[in-house]
Amino acid sequence: MEKIEFEKMDQRTRACFINCLSGFKSANLIGTRSNKFQTTNLSIISSCFHLGAQPALMGMIFRPHSTDRHTLEYILETGYFTLNHVTAEIFEAAHQTSARYPREVSEFQATGLNEEYRDGFLAPFVRESKISLAMKFREHQLLTINQTELVIAEIQSVYAPTECLSEDGSLDLSKANSICVSGLDSYFETKPLARLSYAKPESKPKRI
Amino acid sequence: MEKIEFEKMDQRTRACFINCLSGFKSANLIGTRSNKFQTTNLSIISSCFHLGAQPALMGMIFRPHSTDRHTLEYILETGYFTLNHVTAEIFEAAHQTSARYPREVSEFQATGLNEEYRDGFLAPFVRESKISLAMKFREHQLLTINQTELVIAEIQSVYAPTECLSEDGSLDLSKANSICVSGLDSYFETKPLARLSYAKPESKPKRI
Repeated sequence: MEKIEFEKMDQRTRACFINCLSGFKSANLIGTRSNKFQTTNLSIISSCFHLGAQPALMGMIFRPHSTDRHTLEYILETGYFTLNHVTAEIFEAAHQTSARYPREVSEFQATGLNEEYRDGFLAPFVRESKISLAMKFREHQLLTINQTELVIAEIQSVYAPTECLSEDGSLDLSKANSICVSGLDSYFETKPLARLSYAKPESKPKRI
Repeated sequence: MEKIEFEKMDQRTRACFINCLSGFKSANLIGTRSNKFQTTNLSIISSCFHLGAQPALMGMIFRPHSTDRHTLEYILETGYFTLNHVTAEIFEAAHQTSARYPREVSEFQATGLNEEYRDGFLAPFVRESKISLAMKFREHQLLTINQTELVIAEIQSVYAPTECLSEDGSLDLSKANSICVSGLDSYFETKPLARLSYAKPESKPKRI
């Protein structure tokens, strides 16, 4: 193990390096719809994070002036979007949604992923995803420290394979083929190590 | 795939379920030190996320009144802390740091993980981690939507195995044995699928 002198890296190398340091990240596809422009958009995002269970909230970060601009614009226009877990079967198509397509090209058509509408929800789901969420925009704010946007949204509905759901509420993401991502472009499957019991000072955790 | 009626779940089941929905999460150990109480603290956290590369920033979420209270208190007291990737070798000890130990018990001693001090940095590193970061507190704010605290900190130094670092800045987390977590208690190893080239509208992504 050595100290890595990232201050000396050029801008692109540094961005690639720093992006790896938080650890593995979730890989989701955001599906949005614009009534104004009569189009849909699909965009991979690795910055979704759990914010709370009651209310059921998720946070996500949008970079300023990024390729995500259509996504954020349509979320703010309609107030709704979907989150769809990227699986090992579709990670290449999911990655391709990060290309800078013009507004009139939907990434659904461009990548071959299929739009699906469920239960009257406004935004399109990704048919190929095994775990999908209907999300309602709650608030956003500019983080002035680096001009990124924090978006907070509430989980309205969840679609998932019931065989991945345990009685205690745990959802087996590995069984649902969800994958994770590191940095800008490295995709990983997962292999379960263990579930551990609730930690208490007087005992060691047990495998459950 | 079915619609999962989480509104009907009891509070604990719901917390477990909702916590899985963002996807796989990073697993880090936060090392802190208190001068005031002459003690150290070590706490597992799954809510660290990449915020930006220039400046090199990370965000993390602290629940209100959680077992993390010593950690946040000591970060605010000293302004410094470490982040240490959880590996497959230490995930059980890492999980055990979430037990509610009294202030006078350091989770380092309680779990057998080893404190290490590097290059004059105030907060303790975890010797067993392969990737460790020296962090400087920048700002925090209460997210009023659910009373969680968002902490933003800057990466000051990075320690990592040089054999995991590519020339383009990518750090192979899988090779460094970093693991990921789902929900409250499920730990996973990873297996590389592929790195993909920068996506462009006119071509398909290549494996690199």
